[in-house]
Amino acid sequence: MEKIKVIEVKENVLANNDRAAAALRAKLHDEGTMLINLMSSPGSGKTTLLSATLDALADELAIGVMEADVDSDVDAYTVQSHGAKAIQLHTGGMCHLDAAMTEQGLRNLGTEGLDLVFLENVGNLICPAEFDTGAAKKVMILSAPEGHDKPLKYPLMFEVSDLVLVSKMDVAQYFDFSLEKLTENVRLRNPHAQILPLSAKTGEGMDAWIDWLRAEVAAWKA
Amino acid sequence: MEKIKVIEVKENVLANNDRAAAALRAKLHDEGTMLINLMSSPGSGKTTLLSATLDALADELAIGVMEADVDSDVDAYTVQSHGAKAIQLHTGGMCHLDAAMTEQGLRNLGTEGLDLVFLENVGNLICPAEFDTGAAKKVMILSAPEGHDKPLKYPLMFEVSDLVLVSKMDVAQYFDFSLEKLTENVRLRNPHAQILPLSAKTGEGMDAWIDWLRAEVAAWKA
Repeated sequence: MEKIKVIEVKENVLANNDRAAAALRAKLHDEGTMLINLMSSPGSGKTTLLSATLDALADELAIGVMEADVDSDVDAYTVQSHGAKAIQLHTGGMCHLDAAMTEQGLRNLGTEGLDLVFLENVGNLICPAEFDTGAAKKVMILSAPEGHDKPLKYPLMFEVSDLVLVSKMDVAQYFDFSLEKLTENVRLRNPHAQILPLSAKTGEGMDAWIDWLRAEVAAWKA
Repeated sequence: MEKIKVIEVKENVLANNDRAAAALRAKLHDEGTMLINLMSSPGSGKTTLLSATLDALADELAIGVMEADVDSDVDAYTVQSHGAKAIQLHTGGMCHLDAAMTEQGLRNLGTEGLDLVFLENVGNLICPAEFDTGAAKKVMILSAPEGHDKPLKYPLMFEVSDLVLVSKMDVAQYFDFSLEKLTENVRLRNPHAQILPLSAKTGEGMDAWIDWLRAEVAAWKA
């Protein structure tokens, strides 16, 4: 087992974050590496979903993963065991990553030859929504157990996301959860976001997500 | 239906938060009102648990609830319908409440005659852990679907909590969740926190939580 590198990332308070994010995005575009900012609450199933995603795409794409956490490195080892080039970012108590922190992470990960990098952002529906990390796309995961009212309570996260993955659909029946109501609530905040219900456990809906990734990576490299 | 008051709370950047929190706690102690800071991830079942708690204690205690959210006031109407004096706090995008914001909320709620006030903090396992709000006790809710590894990833929240309520235990069997492992992980961060598994839906474990509240309110007023 390869030892996971742990990087203590620090916010660059002086830089204009939007400018830094745009520059990072342009650089990644030139290099043909697509960065996805993956955001969610704690316990939404990000790591399980990433592991299943890596298994599905292992033969097609070279994938890197940056796991951002306040502490611990358990997730980085998990995704590494599913074939990703993995690195752990520690935010020193901060509840989000900005473009400078993301760039530090990418430099330490090493993006050469990678088609796709997932930034697994800190588990939080508030702060990460406010910062452009330089990613090509923002994808958020809402797990069915969290409930369909979340777009009303965390509006910015739903507003900024290009794609809303609804995870743990295999257990949705045990909760007061309606995909229809969730869709209505997302639409109040974001008329354009795609919504894909899925379960990494049963495989339901995974094909649509994998197809979305394939198409986005192809478009990014075109 | 009484219209819920919505307060836009603002952080007092100049004040020393710890000093303000201590002063607020002393004032509430003099007045015989116990404030509980209730923290959790989005979708952990805070509002459902609060509603069941209000139903159980309605004949014994006068209870107030301050619902803090980035946006919306749906939860405040819910808890009001269960007999609490309720108010909605909007944090203007901020991911936590500090003592000054809590005091603004209490002033607008009106605490005279209240035995117990719940501050339902913003759904977030990171920022709220860093700020003393002036509450007598810090209670966190972790829902079983979030997983038993959360103390490793959000250590400060588990470190500062007096009581960890493990919610949605009725569906724990559908998830990779072990109460034993959770307890081990909590103990790594906090040897003293009580841990109470429960389900507001089935009523399992609710007695222990209600007894804890009764004893704490009695001790606060003694």
